[in-house]
Amino acid sequence: RIDARRLEEAIRSFGRIGALPGGGVCRLALSDADKAARDELTHRMTMLGLVVDIDAIGNIFGTRPARAPDGAAGTVMIGSHIDTVSTGGLYDGTFGVLAGLEIVAALNDAAIETERPITVAAFTNEEGSRFQPDMLGSLVFAGGLPLADALATRDADGAVLGDELRRIGYAGDATGPENIAAYFELHIEQGPVLEREGIQIGVVSGIQGISWHAFRLTGRSAHAGTTPRAMRRDAGMAAARIVHDAYEMGARMGADQLVTCGSLRLAPGLINVVPQEANLTIDLRNPDDDALRDAEAILLAIACAAAAEAGVVVEHRSLARFAPVSFDPALVADVERVATGLGHTTRRMHSGAGHDAQMLARIAPSAMIFVPSAGGVSHNVEEYTAPDDLARGTEILSRLVLHWSCP
Amino acid sequence: RIDARRLEEAIRSFGRIGALPGGGVCRLALSDADKAARDELTHRMTMLGLVVDIDAIGNIFGTRPARAPDGAAGTVMIGSHIDTVSTGGLYDGTFGVLAGLEIVAALNDAAIETERPITVAAFTNEEGSRFQPDMLGSLVFAGGLPLADALATRDADGAVLGDELRRIGYAGDATGPENIAAYFELHIEQGPVLEREGIQIGVVSGIQGISWHAFRLTGRSAHAGTTPRAMRRDAGMAAARIVHDAYEMGARMGADQLVTCGSLRLAPGLINVVPQEANLTIDLRNPDDDALRDAEAILLAIACAAAAEAGVVVEHRSLARFAPVSFDPALVADVERVATGLGHTTRRMHSGAGHDAQMLARIAPSAMIFVPSAGGVSHNVEEYTAPDDLARGTEILSRLVLHWSCP
Ligand SMILES: NC(=O)NCCC(=O)O
Ligand SMILES: NC(=O)NCCC(=O)O
Repeated sequence: RIDARRLEEAIRSFGRIGALPGGGVCRLALSDADKAARDELTHRMTMLGLVVDIDAIGNIFGTRPARAPDGAAGTVMIGSHIDTVSTGGLYDGTFGVLAGLEIVAALNDAAIETERPITVAAFTNEEGSRFQPDMLGSLVFAGGLPLADALATRDADGAVLGDELRRIGYAGDATGPENIAAYFELHIEQGPVLEREGIQIGVVSGIQGISWHAFRLTGRSAHAGTTPRAMRRDAGMAAARIVHDAYEMGARMGADQLVTCGSLRLAPGLINVVPQEANLTIDLRNPDDDALRDAEAILLAIACAAAAEAGVVVEHRSLARFAPVSFDPALVADVERVATGLGHTTRRMHSGAGHDAQMLARIAPSAMIFVPSAGGVSHNVEEYTAPDDLARGTEILSRLVLHWSCP
Repeated sequence: RIDARRLEEAIRSFGRIGALPGGGVCRLALSDADKAARDELTHRMTMLGLVVDIDAIGNIFGTRPARAPDGAAGTVMIGSHIDTVSTGGLYDGTFGVLAGLEIVAALNDAAIETERPITVAAFTNEEGSRFQPDMLGSLVFAGGLPLADALATRDADGAVLGDELRRIGYAGDATGPENIAAYFELHIEQGPVLEREGIQIGVVSGIQGISWHAFRLTGRSAHAGTTPRAMRRDAGMAAARIVHDAYEMGARMGADQLVTCGSLRLAPGLINVVPQEANLTIDLRNPDDDALRDAEAILLAIACAAAAEAGVVVEHRSLARFAPVSFDPALVADVERVATGLGHTTRRMHSGAGHDAQMLARIAPSAMIFVPSAGGVSHNVEEYTAPDDLARGTEILSRLVLHWSCP
């Protein structure tokens, strides 16, 4: 029996770590605020009697041992993340980790022993806001990115991920569980579907494809009043053309093709100087991998045409590329069965956001549970999910964990 | 007889104040580097026997008294500025001021006394990169902007101009010369015309109109993967549309209509967050005021349409608006006569850049002399004008000053 009050209190408590003046949190990966949240998390894990392991990319694993070491094979993992975007809410990621702790606390309260160990995991840099790609910690854990490459990643200011990990004291030497019987991730939907349809629980069947691109345009700074158009190499003009045309492509391709330019900077950035450099990012998403590939090809063609038109040099980097993922059918059916068994309304759905489960699915049967997001708002300080929804999701997760850890 | 070596040495010396590692200078108005350059300038003025006055907006005036106090009425002023853009060269502005000092030095060397005083002026914040509008110091001096408004201007980081002026010790209490018989400004062309046509001296007949605009777009931050297009209020999409459409307008209106987006910032500026805010600037120029007015109207319509399409709120501020100016016909003819008399090739031309002469023309007969810019490059660290060109311009200026100060 989970304690909804205790869970809420834990969420509020983490909401104070990296709190923004106007509400919400800024807890970018490997920042001081992330360190403070990690310290609080590992402290709580220890107080609950979990064995805490930190791996080389800073993933945190808190494991509740099984009744006997020779019980059923593999651990049952509950995972998500505690980093946030710079204008984040209290629920994205953190909810899933703290729900894991609540389930452990409830098992402890009831003195229940399980056949399989239970591991609560918090993965490094899920958001991808500070370091790219997103889901970096779980990607390394799942063997999808060499550790050395991940540690060498730099943020926009040039800080190296490995240095930051050491700075905050979370470069560990454990490896984390080797055999995962099942991976569950409980998360807020972050979108509007459940609320709009009045449904309580999202049974997540998979995650759409994600494709992140960075473009650097190099032109030549020049006087805005004296330089004839024909002599300009205007990196700002090219950047605006790329972003504009990318959005037009999205509109043409239909509702499934999402396009976002989240970041765009001009240098030197002065009103009367033709920009010599522009740096911008484009986030493309599509549940269909072929369509996503089309969008990528069109985007690159757009960038080349815009650069040629402006006479600037374009450099392109892929910052993340994850194909759409389908979760384990048996686990997905389990989620649905437990949720409906508890009398909740459910709906199968794809996830618009990337999640650590997307990476874990490479190495273990995985599934996700969604609860509604008020107004569909996320990556925004106003992110909110009602206490009843939090409790419903946690209750379902606890049943699944109990079922899988006592087979 | 001016000393071309001494002038070059002075330019090189000022080029070391605020020098950038890769060449060029960053001497933004009222920065520490600007203070250092002002200190050096007033020191040199004092060493040349000039009476130094600082007015309330920080304009620096160094006056060489006339032979007798009851000589001909009014001072002959040589002016320009010593602030630079953040990626500026050694010549823009500084050349005109140092040419003035060189002329004073030559008069001193030859012990020539004049009927009118001669004033060398360096005006505050001509570039407009840090504080808007550009030509702010000369605009206040010419009575075109109330002092209190100018002092209250803020830079992009919120610093107040008046505070910065006091911080660097250049909030003076003098008023500057009240009667200006003639104002001359010697400047690099900053554009490609003279070099391309192989002409030595530009006889500047006027300056094109300048119109600066700032737009702030306010949308709503949201998750790039989960938020359907119809629910977005994407400030970045609207910004890209405005900039793109503004450039298209420029292309449609022909070569005379210049459009530059020098600055564009998105917030929070993260790859997977729909931007909640965008701030951008547009610089419009046209030698024809009616055409400039058309461009302004179209730009505002573009901004409204883009904001409506994206569902974001748009705020607009005019940061500068200067109508095209024609210089005093008699003075312009003087420049032409002296230049051709010395055997130089000349061409009448409009200035693409704004200059302090544009403001001084409101209160005194004014004219400008242009010398070629290598490659037409300015507002760029590679800005360069050959020593012979510097000497030719300074020689012409010295003849004009002598002619006007000994009528
Ligand atoms: N859940 C979540 O917001 N993940 C961040 C990665 C993404 O951009 O989808
Ligand atoms: N001369 C010069 O570069 N002035 C700056 C003002 C402008 O942008 O034209």
